[in-house]
Amino acid sequence: MSLTGTYDDANIFAKILRGEAPCVKVYEDDHVLSFMDIFPQSSGHFLVLPKAKSRNLLELDDAALQETMVRVKRLAAAARKAFNPDGIVVTQFNGAPAGQTVFHTHFHIIPRWEGEALGRHGGGQADMDVLKDQAAKIAAAL
Amino acid sequence: MSLTGTYDDANIFAKILRGEAPCVKVYEDDHVLSFMDIFPQSSGHFLVLPKAKSRNLLELDDAALQETMVRVKRLAAAARKAFNPDGIVVTQFNGAPAGQTVFHTHFHIIPRWEGEALGRHGGGQADMDVLKDQAAKIAAAL
Repeated sequence: MSLTGTYDDANIFAKILRGEAPCVKVYEDDHVLSFMDIFPQSSGHFLVLPKAKSRNLLELDDAALQETMVRVKRLAAAARKAFNPDGIVVTQFNGAPAGQTVFHTHFHIIPRWEGEALGRHGGGQADMDVLKDQAAKIAAAL
Repeated sequence: MSLTGTYDDANIFAKILRGEAPCVKVYEDDHVLSFMDIFPQSSGHFLVLPKAKSRNLLELDDAALQETMVRVKRLAAAARKAFNPDGIVVTQFNGAPAGQTVFHTHFHIIPRWEGEALGRHGGGQADMDVLKDQAAKIAAAL
């Protein structure tokens, strides 16, 4: 899937946003939904989605982007408080060749620790109880 | 360097922002400076910096972040028009263990092509004439 195309209402994040598919929720308000990545690249890897429909950053309108980013920052700060990582990656993939696998715009927040390499995304599904515990810790740190 | 510490006015991006060190400029206004990454991870890899002093995203104030992100989006769109990549990665590293090497907040815009792996950041310095040509192409597409 390239950078061009039509938004697919059946994508998994659209289903999660409509409540038709489950997620391990971290945070939600009128502008964004945040939940744990079930194929984490590191411990505590989670996502922030603007609720506005867009396939990628280039299609997201400025106001929605701005509302989203202040929340990305706030949630990254909460993850820092919750997990005390040595670093945090914030990343956003546009198009399959850039690593995008779900075509609803989303930001990854990935805690990093000294000496621990990033796992491959999609390398393995996380334990749901671990994710729930992590989500609760981030939410409590907000 | 961890996520905590004091902003160092002698960091290379601070010097570039003050005009004391050179860069291959793509764009500049009151809020941001954008220039080519001299150790590109892919062809056309460039950076967007908020002018406000901050070591990382967690220290950047909301207004500066919002001004920066609309420009990141606009510049990513220009890079798409200029280079016609198959994908674009937007990423931002906080703390050395997350990949941050210069401690002034910056966003990477990295065009990606199908079947081409990302180079290692710092793997080699780019040809300045190539970077100047790329910067001109992005600027022309704005």
